[in-house]
Parts: sequence; C-alpha cells; structure tokens
Amino acid sequence: MDTALEEEILTFDAVEEARRRIASEIYTTPLPRARKLSAVTGADVFLKLENLQHTGSFKERGALNKLLTLSHAERSRGVVAASAGNHAQGLAYHAQRQGVKATIVMPCGTPLIKVSRTQSFGAEVVLHGDSYDEAYQHALTLQEARDLTFVHPFNDLAVMAGQGTLGLELLEQNPYLEMVVLPVGGGGLISGVAVALKETNPRIKVVGVETSVIPAMQNALYRGELVTTPTARTIADGIAVQRVGSYTLNTVRRYVDEIVTVDEEDVANAILLLLEQEKTVAEGAAAVTLAALRAGNIPGAKGRRVALVISGGNIDVNVISRIIERGLVRDGRLMSASLTLDDAPGALARLTGLLAQMSVNIIEIHHNRAVARLGETSLQMTLETRGFEHIDRIRRRLTDEGYRLHMEAPDRGAP
Amino acid sequence: MDTALEEEILTFDAVEEARRRIASEIYTTPLPRARKLSAVTGADVFLKLENLQHTGSFKERGALNKLLTLSHAERSRGVVAASAGNHAQGLAYHAQRQGVKATIVMPCGTPLIKVSRTQSFGAEVVLHGDSYDEAYQHALTLQEARDLTFVHPFNDLAVMAGQGTLGLELLEQNPYLEMVVLPVGGGGLISGVAVALKETNPRIKVVGVETSVIPAMQNALYRGELVTTPTARTIADGIAVQRVGSYTLNTVRRYVDEIVTVDEEDVANAILLLLEQEKTVAEGAAAVTLAALRAGNIPGAKGRRVALVISGGNIDVNVISRIIERGLVRDGRLMSASLTLDDAPGALARLTGLLAQMSVNIIEIHHNRAVARLGETSLQMTLETRGFEHIDRIRRRLTDEGYRLHMEAPDRGAP
Repeated sequence: MDTALEEEILTFDAVEEARRRIASEIYTTPLPRARKLSAVTGADVFLKLENLQHTGSFKERGALNKLLTLSHAERSRGVVAASAGNHAQGLAYHAQRQGVKATIVMPCGTPLIKVSRTQSFGAEVVLHGDSYDEAYQHALTLQEARDLTFVHPFNDLAVMAGQGTLGLELLEQNPYLEMVVLPVGGGGLISGVAVALKETNPRIKVVGVETSVIPAMQNALYRGELVTTPTARTIADGIAVQRVGSYTLNTVRRYVDEIVTVDEEDVANAILLLLEQEKTVAEGAAAVTLAALRAGNIPGAKGRRVALVISGGNIDVNVISRIIERGLVRDGRLMSASLTLDDAPGALARLTGLLAQMSVNIIEIHHNRAVARLGETSLQMTLETRGFEHIDRIRRRLTDEGYRLHMEAPDRGAP
Repeated sequence: MDTALEEEILTFDAVEEARRRIASEIYTTPLPRARKLSAVTGADVFLKLENLQHTGSFKERGALNKLLTLSHAERSRGVVAASAGNHAQGLAYHAQRQGVKATIVMPCGTPLIKVSRTQSFGAEVVLHGDSYDEAYQHALTLQEARDLTFVHPFNDLAVMAGQGTLGLELLEQNPYLEMVVLPVGGGGLISGVAVALKETNPRIKVVGVETSVIPAMQNALYRGELVTTPTARTIADGIAVQRVGSYTLNTVRRYVDEIVTVDEEDVANAILLLLEQEKTVAEGAAAVTLAALRAGNIPGAKGRRVALVISGGNIDVNVISRIIERGLVRDGRLMSASLTLDDAPGALARLTGLLAQMSVNIIEIHHNRAVARLGETSLQMTLETRGFEHIDRIRRRLTDEGYRLHMEAPDRGAP
C-alpha cells in the first residue's frame, strides 16, 4: 500500500543545517500576540507574519536552501520550476542574489502582474500550456533539454528542510507555544515545521488546514497513498494542490496531529479580520489558519497558546476590495435599496434631502424611467450606512414618507 | 516672542524612565527592511511597524506612561481625554488594564465604530459638541467637575516621554540608522523620538512630515510662536491638528532637523504601495512618511539608512477599498468606457462575446435606451483589464469592429 512512498525522511539535522545556510539571507519575521483575535477565538493567539518576507511568503526559505545545496556545476547550469505563485517569486529572487539563472514556467493565462513580478527578479519566464500540469510537464522537458536542476515547490527534502526553519524560529520566539496551525497545500511547509517542532518538543500540537473544496492531504491520509483530488476554484489559490508529495505525505503521517478543512466563506471573513483588526495583508492560503480557529474546527485550541502561520500576503488588491465590500454589507455599513418615485420634478431632490437628514452617504444611484409604470420612475441606490439600527431607521422613515421600498439582503455567497 | 513657550523641556532621562515603566506592557514592534521600497526610493528603507500595537497605533506608549506617573489618589479618581481617534483607544485600553476609569469625549458626529471600539475597552464615551474643539472644551469641564486627570494627546511631558520610547527601540533594533522620518500632528511623537535619538547620536537626522493642507508645525516654526492653522479635509486625519503644543514646539525647534509637507494624492498612493508591496495596513497619517520619501521631498535621504515610522493602521476599510479602485484605474487594471450600440436583438451578445475573446472581465454594465438616438442604445461599462497595452488592444479591436467608443481618463482627483 505504501509502495509509492519514499523511504527517506526529513530529519531535524537537515532543518538545522538549512537554518545555518539561509539565516543571514532570510528575515526572521515577527510573532506578535494578537489580543483581539484571542478575545474572538478564546485561544491565546500569536501570528507568525511570514507575509513580511521580501517576496511576500515563506517560499523563499525552501528555495534558498535548495539553491545553497547545489554543486558548483549545477549552479552554473541553472534551475527551473513550474509556478505562477509564491514559489516562482521566492526562487527567482534568491537565484538572482546567488547568481544562478532561473527559468520559471507558467501557464499561458497567468495574470501579467505575476509574470512581470517574477521577471523583475531576473528570471526567464516561459509561458506554456493551459494548466499548471501542462506548465509542470514543460518544466520537466526544459530540465532535460537544458540540463537544469528542477526545484519542486514542495516534494523535495532540501525545500522541506528550508521551510522547517520557520519552526525553529517559532521555538526561539516563544518556547511556550502549545499549538502551531499551518496551511497545507502540497505539504512542504507543514512537513518541515512539524519535524522542527516535534523533534524538539513532542507535546506541541501541529495542525494543518486545507480548503474544504480541495482536501488533497486529507484524501491521501485517508487512502494511505498518493491520490489526485479534483480541482476547484478557491480563494486560497496558494494551496490549491491536487496531489501531495511522497516525502510530504510520509512526514505528515508521522509528525502532524491533525488536518482540518475550512469553508471558503470563512476564509474571506478571516482575510478581512486580519486586515481590519491586525493591520496585516494575508492571502487566502494564509487566512485558512485563522478561519479554522474561528470556526471552531480545531479541537483543543481554546485556552492554549496557539501560533497561526500567516504564510503569505500575495493577494490581488481586486480581491481585497471585493472582500471589504461584502464585509461592509454584512456589517450593515453598506446597503442596496430600490424604490419607485413619482415621475415629477423635485421628487429626487426630496428623497436625497431626506437621506442627507439621516446622515446617509449615497455611493451610487440609478434612475430608470423605462422599467416603471407610467408616471413613475424606478430608482436603485447603494448607500453607506452606520449599522443595522441605522438601516432600520432609514427603512421606517422612508416608509413613513410614503416610499415603497425594497431592500436587498446581504449577499452571503462566495466572493 | 517666545513668551508662550514653556521653559521646561523633555529630557532623555524622562524617556528612559518611561521605557522602564511601560516596556513590559508595550509590544516592541518589528523593523523589517523594505527592499522593494528601497528600490523605488533609492534609500535603504526600514519600516517601524507601530500599526501592530494592540490598539493599532503608537499612542499607547504615551498614554500608558502618563497613567503610570499618576498618584494613587489620581488613579482612583480617573482620567479624561478628548479624542475620536488613536489616543482614545490607546488611553482606554491601558486605563482598563491598570484599573483606572477613563472618560473619553468625542464630537457628536463620530462614526459608530470608533465609539464602540473605545467603549469595548471599558471607557465611558461622552458625545458632545460638533467639533473636536467643542469636545475638548467639554473634557476640560468634566475634568474640573469630576476632579479627573486630563490626558492631553500630545502637549504633556509624560505623554511625549512615552512616545519617545519608540526612538530607544529604533536605536537598539538598528544602531546604524542615519535618518528617521515621522508623521507630525501635534508633535508629541516626533518630540519624544527626537530627544531619544539626538541625545544618543546627534548625527541621526530627524525629519517630520505634515500634510500640505494643514502645515501647523511649519507655520508655528516659521512664526516662532503658537498659531492656529485653518483646518481642512485630509486623508491623514490622524495628524489633522490645527495648533501644536508649547512643549512640542519647543522640543521640535531644538531637536528636529526638518519638517516637510506632502500632497494628499501622494498619501493615497503610499497607502496602496504599503498594502500591495509591504503587506501592511497604514492609515493616512502613517503613510505620509513614505509619501514624502517617494515624492523626493526629503533632502539627503538617497543612499541613507532611513526608518519610516508607520505610526498607525486605523483606517476605515471603506477608504482602503476606494484607494484600491483608484489605483487599479491608474495602473490600467480597471477602466470605464461608454459606447453606442444598435438597438437590435443580439447586439449586446456580439459585444460581450468580443470582450470575452480578449479576456476582459465585465465588472458592471449599464444599458440605457432613453438617452441615445432612436435605433441606438447607450452602454456604460466598467471593465477589468490587464494593463495599458491590453486597453489599447481593446480600443483598437472595438473600433475596428465599428463601435464608437469613448474611454474615460483615469480619475486623478483626491480620494
């Protein structure tokens, strides 16, 4: 049953060696206590702000450790990887600093900003194929054709050891941590960190979080072998991995206490909470940790000293903007309403006057005569409000004044 | 000429004493190197992330130091302050932890969220008056009537000494800093930090930044006395102070190298840059530091090791959302266009098909028959695009297909 799994396993020594290799080039990210999140979740919460790494994620650790384990000949030939995300940037950045040529294959539809950001670190970006899998296959082709070293995003002992250095930092920054919660995609981060933590103090619980729409690690653990999980759209795109690795599955099975999943909606809310309360920008893949804790999906977290690894902050500002707007609607700070108005001069002036009296900011207004009955005008408004009590007052006042009002319920769908 | 200024001055010893008093209760915020901002500005930039304090700003330092210098009798009677912002939250939070009753006066129009956040720290919030000045006067009335201790937001030697502890941290975190840039409102922060830095190493340049719409400290320095600067709307509302303090003016004149100003538009851009590149949420008052550096308003910064004090992160998420959208328009990632369409079945289907072919996401579309000529329909669209090259291709393609297109120029007005 386990024939697909490698026998070789990540060791604590390998993580310590990685630390010595990469320490001078990697930022020791802070671990502030998050008192507001503690109050909300009932745990004593600390945030490992790995989004403050230079390229915005932990991926630099593993990429740099891999680069520093290459022979002189390998370095001079260069490295290749397939990634449109954090691995691409982390590898490109440190390859440039180490004077190693990096070739990164991305699928053709990759957003321009990810291409140009990776190019800005001096990497050659090759656009190929329509999916990550096709890009991955092309990277393997380039590896053979150009005699390059392939740098896997997670299933590589040197990469896993590099990610594990984050665990050593946690132990030094707060030796009294009782639980560490990490996002799980291919399992590289959690493997490295679990080895670092458990080989030092087996009592520290290590919990991984996946999005419920692609529970690849849960599936592999359940089946006891490498399986492919169907893909899906997720706000946590950084951990949208369909098939974990042989090394990582092996390590997770041995060292990780629990893998839990979290819903998309909770992830969006966690991103907003981190932004508003903790003043930090987390990508979806990083916010799964807080989302799981807040949803009560992590048994035994209450009352414990828990570190959430905020693994990266590379989220499209577009997405942030949409999450903020949904959050405002949910909190009664933004509302949509439609009503019909007499089609007479002064009717709109009277309505907007009323709204101004009630300190309502009008964000957007559409006035449409065609769809209403003759003599009437249909009006759609987006209003900035001060909470649900305020919305109730507006509703009552407008109804009292004779307006037929229709208010739209907050959209609770996925972003 | 200087008769209005106090003779007493903040001393280095007072700052060191404050440090001993407050250190165990105040988070030593991190000072990461900002390599991307360094590349953009030509300085070697470090960010003092004071937005990671529990209540989201540096104001806790001064408030706590003041609380800890009160006599037993004063503590049991309680404190009062006028503030709708960071000072209110910082004082309320530490008063609660120290078991001191805090009364905070805010103007009547204060957003609910600021009221409830301050109440959540156990403070009594009194809403009074239509302006900050009226709230301030009422706080003085309460001080007399209830025999409370008034905690001034900046013009108080104990408050200034508390803020100065940030300077001691900077010296320890990076003794090789050559310049420190801070926001200036009433001058409490820069006074304390300047004393800490200059009394240790007179070669470190200390630069203050005000918004150009309320240059209160510049005016006071120029006139050599306390003057009142007219108020104005600003995105940097945390430093919208019309009249600096006697102690702070005295200290700034003696210790600060330069006070510069910065434009509103540059502040909005700096907020977005900190969010996108540095993954951190800065309020306008904090982003003035980066804005000034980036605009080239700080002489001698190039090539130097410069710390920007990101003093707070308490910004309305509404404002963030608007800044993001303006930024997207500026970068060619969001555009508005209007065109006229034949008023015939299938015309809209043909247009949206074309847009889909060019990988354009339609964010919003309005279709209005009434305003166009007979047989035509007017269409307004907001589109998600991939940069200016993409916009050019869309423009050419639609024109080639016979559409009369009108594209709106990016809005470069203030947010």
